[in-house]
Amino acid sequence: MTKIISVNAGSSSLKFQLFIMPSEQVLTSGIIERIGLADGIFTIKVNDQKVTVSQPIPDHKVAVELVLNALIQHKIVNSLDEISGVGHRVVHGGEAYAQSVVFDDDVENTIEALSELAPLHNPANLIGYRAFKKELPHARHVAVFDTAFHQTMEDDIYLYPIPYEYYDQFKIRRYGFHGTSHYYVSRKVAQLMGRSVEDINVITCHLGNGASLAAVQGGKSVNTSMGFTPLAGIMMGTRSGDIDPAIITFLMQKLGKTASQVIDILNKKSGMLGVSGLSSDARDIDKGIQDGNARALLTRKLYANRVAQTIGSYFIQLGHVDAIVFTGGLGENDTAVRGAIVERIQSAMGIDFNAELNATSRGKDLCLSKAGSKTQVWIVPTNEELVIAQDTVRLLGL
Amino acid sequence: MTKIISVNAGSSSLKFQLFIMPSEQVLTSGIIERIGLADGIFTIKVNDQKVTVSQPIPDHKVAVELVLNALIQHKIVNSLDEISGVGHRVVHGGEAYAQSVVFDDDVENTIEALSELAPLHNPANLIGYRAFKKELPHARHVAVFDTAFHQTMEDDIYLYPIPYEYYDQFKIRRYGFHGTSHYYVSRKVAQLMGRSVEDINVITCHLGNGASLAAVQGGKSVNTSMGFTPLAGIMMGTRSGDIDPAIITFLMQKLGKTASQVIDILNKKSGMLGVSGLSSDARDIDKGIQDGNARALLTRKLYANRVAQTIGSYFIQLGHVDAIVFTGGLGENDTAVRGAIVERIQSAMGIDFNAELNATSRGKDLCLSKAGSKTQVWIVPTNEELVIAQDTVRLLGL
Repeated sequence: MTKIISVNAGSSSLKFQLFIMPSEQVLTSGIIERIGLADGIFTIKVNDQKVTVSQPIPDHKVAVELVLNALIQHKIVNSLDEISGVGHRVVHGGEAYAQSVVFDDDVENTIEALSELAPLHNPANLIGYRAFKKELPHARHVAVFDTAFHQTMEDDIYLYPIPYEYYDQFKIRRYGFHGTSHYYVSRKVAQLMGRSVEDINVITCHLGNGASLAAVQGGKSVNTSMGFTPLAGIMMGTRSGDIDPAIITFLMQKLGKTASQVIDILNKKSGMLGVSGLSSDARDIDKGIQDGNARALLTRKLYANRVAQTIGSYFIQLGHVDAIVFTGGLGENDTAVRGAIVERIQSAMGIDFNAELNATSRGKDLCLSKAGSKTQVWIVPTNEELVIAQDTVRLLGL
Repeated sequence: MTKIISVNAGSSSLKFQLFIMPSEQVLTSGIIERIGLADGIFTIKVNDQKVTVSQPIPDHKVAVELVLNALIQHKIVNSLDEISGVGHRVVHGGEAYAQSVVFDDDVENTIEALSELAPLHNPANLIGYRAFKKELPHARHVAVFDTAFHQTMEDDIYLYPIPYEYYDQFKIRRYGFHGTSHYYVSRKVAQLMGRSVEDINVITCHLGNGASLAAVQGGKSVNTSMGFTPLAGIMMGTRSGDIDPAIITFLMQKLGKTASQVIDILNKKSGMLGVSGLSSDARDIDKGIQDGNARALLTRKLYANRVAQTIGSYFIQLGHVDAIVFTGGLGENDTAVRGAIVERIQSAMGIDFNAELNATSRGKDLCLSKAGSKTQVWIVPTNEELVIAQDTVRLLGL
């Protein structure tokens, strides 16, 4: 028995979850937001109650101290020595990491070097690592990469139809993200179906504010919708996903903006927010539809179409599909979006959908298709933190 | 009985075909290349022989005079008065034209205004129109648009997940191109199958140096792979098709180029040429594969994957597909590429493919699937010139 902390450090936030392993019991979880600002917020669960503290949190070092002090203060642990491993989410492992790895200086340097491919994420992930390393000097650390699960894609899937030397020289290729989530739900659904993951083909739909799909063949990712960056693929909360690249130069001219400014619009002002003009949150879109807002309805249709078409392309690639899995905040909870997507794919894929069950089901492992459906449809809540804790235990031999 | 000339005017070229209508007999065809240069080339078919003349061809007016003089000189017509109609291919009809239209001043002005959306094509198309109008003052003229057939797409298909005001203000949306070809082959395959086009769903694959797919439901285009511009969609001879938009800013930084220069690379140095490093011509790729060139093989796989995935997305949208049609120079003639595409789609779509027949079939109307195949696979050579002549006759009431 050992205690493991899963960490997801962003540039101004730090999420954590403390597990007892191998029982996988969650002792606590929490989040620190607005790091670097005077009005930082620290939230931690104590006996299933949320405790929130507001105070200046100047940097990640202070954030980590806050977390660790709170663990002692609330008697969640008696001593920090009980925590023998820390698993860190790292966004970009490039082509260097096809699986999780124990942190050492080489790993740290490689993640640093890969910052070029994930300038917003890898540096923040490393700041989190360094802060925990300092505060928990006896613990060992593991890096768990968002990209690793997708490293099994073939070159004829991960390369772009651009001059080949840009791959050689600059490593421009499809990487894909959300790998830990696609990994988790593809295995979990196999278990729920009573099948071996090696024997089934699954399309996993991780639909949150960021969103991606993956084609998982016999447990291996063979395609995914995000690409070189998380901007690619399907429409998201504020991201456009794939568009005609020539729109960028047309918009630069029309708006008098630089290319970076236009890419920023595609990242932050597009997707559901851009089409609806209302919100990037699917719950607000749903409310808009109920209020008769035509643009809200258009937003849902556009979103469902793009997800459905990606499912279609993976159906072709896989040949046959045993299950489609919905996960992520939207995938687990938005009954109307799930319904709209399945409505669009059921005819071609031979899905016999239990629309009534779908309409009342949220956030739990559940099969939404009827017995005999050629392809099953599932909700499987994701649990990236658990995968991080499991990989940490496994790699540290705990 | 009347004589109609179909014209396709580019910025430095002019293709034409002269028909007797309604019998659809082709009297002659030809092309003028390198207009504006000292070493212009004029090729015309006379009694099934190609006659080629090299001479300076300073502008389109001279080019049109050359064509018309040759028709008299080679006794293809006795008098130019026999030509009562001229049908002009016009690339961009925007949202103004959902079908062909008789040229008048309004039409000319609208096409001019749409040049912003097709700066390389619409101005050249108009130069051709004006030159023929001057030289054949008694004839009437019809504009046949590449975009018109796709105007039946729904807004939840043609809009991009970007701020909605960019559609309102700048008309940024999916238009699609090659409409005349998709229209022709979708109708022709229905006829060959002995079905009414209204009763069937077809996926048409126009694969040439430029290439696009369309989903045609009951005779109407409901989706197509080219977008706001012809850069979008599948990989082509020199074009990338859709890629992660964030690659553009990354490449700008790496290469020290402007956004326009990067888009130029995506248009002219990418696709088959960029991946293979050999050629934009699928015949050269085929030769490379036979010579054991690994990048040539990668190029074909990448190309076939992208076409197959688009077919998959249209299969989902259509629900069931009666026929897949290959057309265009590559689609009609490249047996290996067709084979590679069908190999990737046959399992999901229930296609029973006659691979032996495919391997020996080029450039003629032919069904490549076996009896009982859930979806049929066809070669149907395209004939955009004929559609232009037919629309011209119909609209002029000849």
